[in-house]
This record gives sequence, C-alpha cells and structure tokens, in this order.
Amino acid sequence: MTGGTLAEDFQQRLTQIAEATEKTLDHLLGPSPLPGETLRPPRFLEAMRYASLGGGKRLRPFLLVETARLFGIEGEGVLRAASALEMIHCYSLVHDDLPALDNDDLRRGRPTTHKAYDEATAILVGDGLLTYAFDVLADPATHKDPAIRIELVLALARAAGVGGMVGGQVLDIEAEQAKTPHTAEAVIELQSMKTGALLHYAVIAGAIFAGVSKQTREALSAYGQALGAAFQVADDILDVEADTEALGKKAGKDADRNKATLVASLGLEAARKRRDTLSAEAIAALDSFPEGREAHILKEAARFAATRKN
Amino acid sequence: MTGGTLAEDFQQRLTQIAEATEKTLDHLLGPSPLPGETLRPPRFLEAMRYASLGGGKRLRPFLLVETARLFGIEGEGVLRAASALEMIHCYSLVHDDLPALDNDDLRRGRPTTHKAYDEATAILVGDGLLTYAFDVLADPATHKDPAIRIELVLALARAAGVGGMVGGQVLDIEAEQAKTPHTAEAVIELQSMKTGALLHYAVIAGAIFAGVSKQTREALSAYGQALGAAFQVADDILDVEADTEALGKKAGKDADRNKATLVASLGLEAARKRRDTLSAEAIAALDSFPEGREAHILKEAARFAATRKN
Repeated sequence: MTGGTLAEDFQQRLTQIAEATEKTLDHLLGPSPLPGETLRPPRFLEAMRYASLGGGKRLRPFLLVETARLFGIEGEGVLRAASALEMIHCYSLVHDDLPALDNDDLRRGRPTTHKAYDEATAILVGDGLLTYAFDVLADPATHKDPAIRIELVLALARAAGVGGMVGGQVLDIEAEQAKTPHTAEAVIELQSMKTGALLHYAVIAGAIFAGVSKQTREALSAYGQALGAAFQVADDILDVEADTEALGKKAGKDADRNKATLVASLGLEAARKRRDTLSAEAIAALDSFPEGREAHILKEAARFAATRKN
Repeated sequence: MTGGTLAEDFQQRLTQIAEATEKTLDHLLGPSPLPGETLRPPRFLEAMRYASLGGGKRLRPFLLVETARLFGIEGEGVLRAASALEMIHCYSLVHDDLPALDNDDLRRGRPTTHKAYDEATAILVGDGLLTYAFDVLADPATHKDPAIRIELVLALARAAGVGGMVGGQVLDIEAEQAKTPHTAEAVIELQSMKTGALLHYAVIAGAIFAGVSKQTREALSAYGQALGAAFQVADDILDVEADTEALGKKAGKDADRNKATLVASLGLEAARKRRDTLSAEAIAALDSFPEGREAHILKEAARFAATRKN
C-alpha cells in the first residue's frame, strides 16, 4: 500500500477490496439458514453463488469501502454493505442477460446464469439476490445504529428501483426498440439511471456510514455522478474499440441493436472528449477533501473508470 | 362494523382494508418521482400498476392491518407497510406466471402481466415492485422510529428471500420436475416457505408496529403459521374442487403438472381434515388475547382462509 505510484496503489486497493468482498459474499451465501429462514435449497444457493462470486472488478464495493475509509470508517459492516450493493449489481446482470431482455450467453467470460442453469433458476436467483441485499443491510451486523441501516436501505431501494436502475433498464429497452436515433440528452438520462444510480449510491453509502455533513455529501454526490457517467460512456466506447476476449462479453453488440449509446449519439470523438471531461469533473469534486491517500485513490478511480480496458 | 355476524364483520373489514390498500398503492405508484429518483418511465409505471392494482383479496394487508389494530395501532404507516407487503406478493405472482416458470396466461381473471405487456416488462415489473416494497418500508412516512422500520425491512427480506418465499418457489419447481411422488413432510416444508412465510410476516409486522412482548409475538407467530398452512392446503383443495371461473385462474392444473400438493400426498379427505385442524389451531392461538372485536375478526380470518371458495 505504500511507496507505489497512485495507479499501482489504486490497483492494489481494488484487488484487496475485491478479495474482501468475495470473502464476505462467500460467507453471506453460506449453507446455514439464518434465524427466520427455513432452509436454503442447495442447488439454488449454488446458482446464487455462481451469479455473484468469482468475477467482476467489484468497482461498486471499492467505491463504497474507499469512501467510508475517507472518513476513517472500516471493517466488517462496511464490507457487508459493499457486498449487498454487489448483490444488487449481480442480480441486475442476471436479469438483463435473460433471453427476454439482452439474451446474452456470456458474462465475465463464463456462461450467463440462465445458460449455466436455466431461465427459471436465473429469474429466481435475481429475485433472491435482490431480496438478500436488503436483508444484509438491515441486519444489526452491518451497523449498530438502526438509523444508519435504514438510511442505507432507503437510498439503495431508491437507486435500484423504478426511478433508478430498473427504470433505466426499461428506458434502455424502449430505446433499442425505437427505430429513430437517440438524442444525447435522452441517452445521458437513461445512463444516469441504469448505471449511474448504483455507482452514485456506492459513494453515498460510504457517506451514510460516516454521517457526514450535507456539504460533504454534496461534494461526494458530484463525484459519484461524474464518475458514473464517465464509467458508462467509457463502456460505450469500449464496445466499439475492444474485442470480445478482453471484454469478457460480446463486443460490438451495441451498434447491432440500435442501443442507446453516446458513441451513436455523439460520435466516437465527442464521446471520448465527454468521457475525459467527466473524469476530470469527478476528480475536481474531491478537491475539497484533505490530500490524504484515500482521496487520491478515489481520484485515481475516476481516471480508471474512464480509461479501463474492460 | 357493528351489529353484523362475525362472518359479515370480517367480510366488511376485508373489503375496507382492500379498498384502503388499493388507495395507498395507487398513491405510491403515482407518476411523480420521489427525491433521489430521476423519472418513472410512464408505460412501465402503468405495467407496475397493472400488476398490483385492481385485484386480489388483499389477505396479507388485511392480516397486517388487523394485527396492528389488535394493539390499537392504525393509520397511514400501517397501510404503507401493508401495501409494501402486497407489492412483494404481487411481484411473486408476476414472476411465477412467466413462461419459464408456471407459464400462466390468466391471473385474477385477467391476462397475466407478461401477456398484457411482454416478458421483459414483466421481469422488470417484478424487480421494480420488489425493490419499491423496501423503499416504502424504509421511508420515515411508514413509522417515525428507524428501529421499527428496520425491523419491518429485515423480517420482510428474510420471509421473502432464499430461506423463505423465493426458496419455496425453487422447491416447488424442483418438486414438479421430480418424477417421484412427494412426501407430505416435504410438501408442508415447501409450502411453509412459498406461501406461509409471507402470511406469517403479515401477522408479525403488525406486532413489530406495536413493539409487543416476546410472548405475545410467539402467540401471533403460532397463529400466522397455522393460518398460512391452512390457507395453502385450502388452495390445493380448491384446485381440485373449484372451476376456473370461480378461481380466476386455471383450475385442475396441479395434477397435470405433478405439483407438490397435500391433496396429492395425503388424499383429498386427509387434506380437508388437515385444513380444518390447522384453522382450529390458528383460532386457538389467539385465545390468550382479550375477547375484543379485533381478535374475533382475526379468528374469523382463520376460518375464511380454510373455507374460501377462491
């Protein structure tokens, strides 16, 4: 953690937090039923684990853990919240990949959940992970103060629901079905819901743990919003530029589908420019924070979100 | 509310609470985004409303509202919790009806959500309702005390998740795919998860609102468990005895599918006997409560759960 360049430190923290999240998810998705549960059907539990363990950059857990750490808060509770957030992300991937939605066979270089199991299992795995995320947040093991836990629950439900991630997915499908080109404005709005809301939550959840002032939360909110938008436009660009192997999912599929992307709406050059501007905005939003290692690593995360290769 | 027989009073309260729940759901599923939401996609919101408004006995809201009222607690917060619970029930119906699961075209006498809209919309409507249920419970409008709200959230997540309703649905599918007959014991366990957990939650949520003693909660828990089991065996019997019109969904389909039912495992006569025993157990569990109108109506609900015609 010491002595490296910021980019190296960032990668190291990203790896560390991914490992810690994996361990927490592994524990949470263990075979023993919790009080109030009857039993956890074994094959189904295995499918829930398949859908959530062993893959992904864990960028959302990283952002949650590092934001909390910016305020000196670390530990098991933060990792539980990070894992709950990752469950929401993973459930959304499982449902998005279904034949009735994106109909994808490949995710993170492996068969998607409905391919590895079946459609019924994949639908229920999504429902199970979504529900369990709220269980994990609401459990006293996440934070001793019920007021903190309920704030974590409310903000996540709102970010993930009809006015956030789920609504964004709906708009994405509607855009794909439309025969007309998409305005950049409409694409930005749907992306802020589909991808942005959950990345924004990651940052805000760290602030909820710390009970920070309104002003601090607003600065973090600006960071989270700009980073989320940069992340998504980078995704649009990657779909054009990267190959399927590096991406771990099928590349070039956006154009095939009249997907609402900023590359389609703005052109590749303007999309690249917007990506870099947003990344810079995210970094600037953190200027009000002390110049510690944590703020620097969050700034590095904004660079990474824009320049990542997968 | 006064002067009628208990059965009439029960029906009147059931109707009143169904209407109040409908009104609350209608309000909650209005077009205006809440703070933290970007927008509610109009066609999708309409589908969420289609899936949750205008149908059903609202037995779960009834149980929640009447249990809270047993302890003198009434009002908007209780109706919000009742509506959140109904959202979970409705989402589970939408997902269960999907082609990959039960593949049902008819529900409450109307086309199922994926028939009225499409499969992608139905999957996302389920996700949206499930997520919104936790939003509604976590919102301060439901109860001013965060400790009460978080307890409502945790108990619901646990009842609805992998060790409860979702897990029960998984066991139900696994049972259907099995070529061997199902033991009564296995059927009882899966039904306690698939249907029982949410009915039990309805009763416990009323107790959570009231912050009752452990002993009182245990009495209510016994009532909720027996009522939930009676309700489900009545369902199994109805599938054999009723016709499609009265049921509002296709009758006789359980036997077609090797569904895990107690009629199949025990035979019709033993199933009827079990239903009546459970109903009597539920009623007996309430004997420790004062002989007020509310306890009598909950007892009547246990009779209704066993003897209903749809």
